[in-house]
Amino acid sequence: VRRFVIIGQTALASGDFSLDDLASSSGRLDALLRCVRAALLVSHGLRREVLVYLILRGGPSAPRVVRIDGRTAKFLRPDERSLATLLKKTLAVGAGPELAEVRPGLSLCEGDLDKVLEDLGDGSCYVLDERGHDVRGQELPEDAVFFVGDHLGFDEATLTCLQDYRRLSVGPVSLHSDDVVTLLTNELDRRAG
Amino acid sequence: VRRFVIIGQTALASGDFSLDDLASSSGRLDALLRCVRAALLVSHGLRREVLVYLILRGGPSAPRVVRIDGRTAKFLRPDERSLATLLKKTLAVGAGPELAEVRPGLSLCEGDLDKVLEDLGDGSCYVLDERGHDVRGQELPEDAVFFVGDHLGFDEATLTCLQDYRRLSVGPVSLHSDDVVTLLTNELDRRAG
Repeated sequence: VRRFVIIGQTALASGDFSLDDLASSSGRLDALLRCVRAALLVSHGLRREVLVYLILRGGPSAPRVVRIDGRTAKFLRPDERSLATLLKKTLAVGAGPELAEVRPGLSLCEGDLDKVLEDLGDGSCYVLDERGHDVRGQELPEDAVFFVGDHLGFDEATLTCLQDYRRLSVGPVSLHSDDVVTLLTNELDRRAG
Repeated sequence: VRRFVIIGQTALASGDFSLDDLASSSGRLDALLRCVRAALLVSHGLRREVLVYLILRGGPSAPRVVRIDGRTAKFLRPDERSLATLLKKTLAVGAGPELAEVRPGLSLCEGDLDKVLEDLGDGSCYVLDERGHDVRGQELPEDAVFFVGDHLGFDEATLTCLQDYRRLSVGPVSLHSDDVVTLLTNELDRRAG
């Protein structure tokens, strides 16, 4: 199972955002939702062997983790408003200390990166970094774990926590996080078949 | 200048869609808007040397062409609602037989593929096709023109019109159009620098 961990430095951890003004009211949760689409959805379908973790660090309910599991997820659609509606419902419930399924395939808990690392278990971990090794020259197992920052990048504490992992780059231009997820996904698709 | 031509078989050619229900009310214009983001926007910026043509074939005002020019475009933001708002305003005006600028960098006209081909002038044209040649093995000039279908693919008349152009594929999985644009963009970025 491929895994993407997207860290939203300001993305709201509660459902207290407006669907009509997502980009301004959600701490840029919209950017994370676009990563969900890029990781999990293909033309007319859902990728089953993919897990996406969103780390939400914005607002008074933060930090919280949402895990989206392609094997059991339902009702995932590519447009931002549909994804935002699904997240809003998921975030409306109380979060406990352990990941618990709130809706089909969507689980929620209190916690930050440490909680995600605990849930990940084994796996080869990679941190996306513009100065990293070109992904095209790297061995990548199908169960790779990719840590991707948002528009603010990683903070120092996160970088320290991830310092032992290999740095990867997807190309010479600084891209949106969802483009990074698309490029990594294509890299794995090409190796798989 | 790189050019992308995205053909929306059902995408509404008028602004008569609801911003609150974009995916259902716009004939899947949302999918085309995601292509605009993928082609024109990077982390904290806009790509100047890119042109995107949207061919809108849905509804009674169809067909119409919108051209978005990165050299002069303003107010482009990555979230779907912002892009939809901009398109709605652009499509609200009357369209003449020739491309005319309606808002900064956004031009509109009546017409279909023939109008786009006329406006493109010279350039190496490629048609995205899952059975095409792998893009990684191809020479690609920086002024390449890519024709990309939507979720319905190309119709027969369009394929006939584009039959002399080389077929390219971006990988083994059938992807959303915006992912295709991201992968082509990365290919050109890598060759440029």
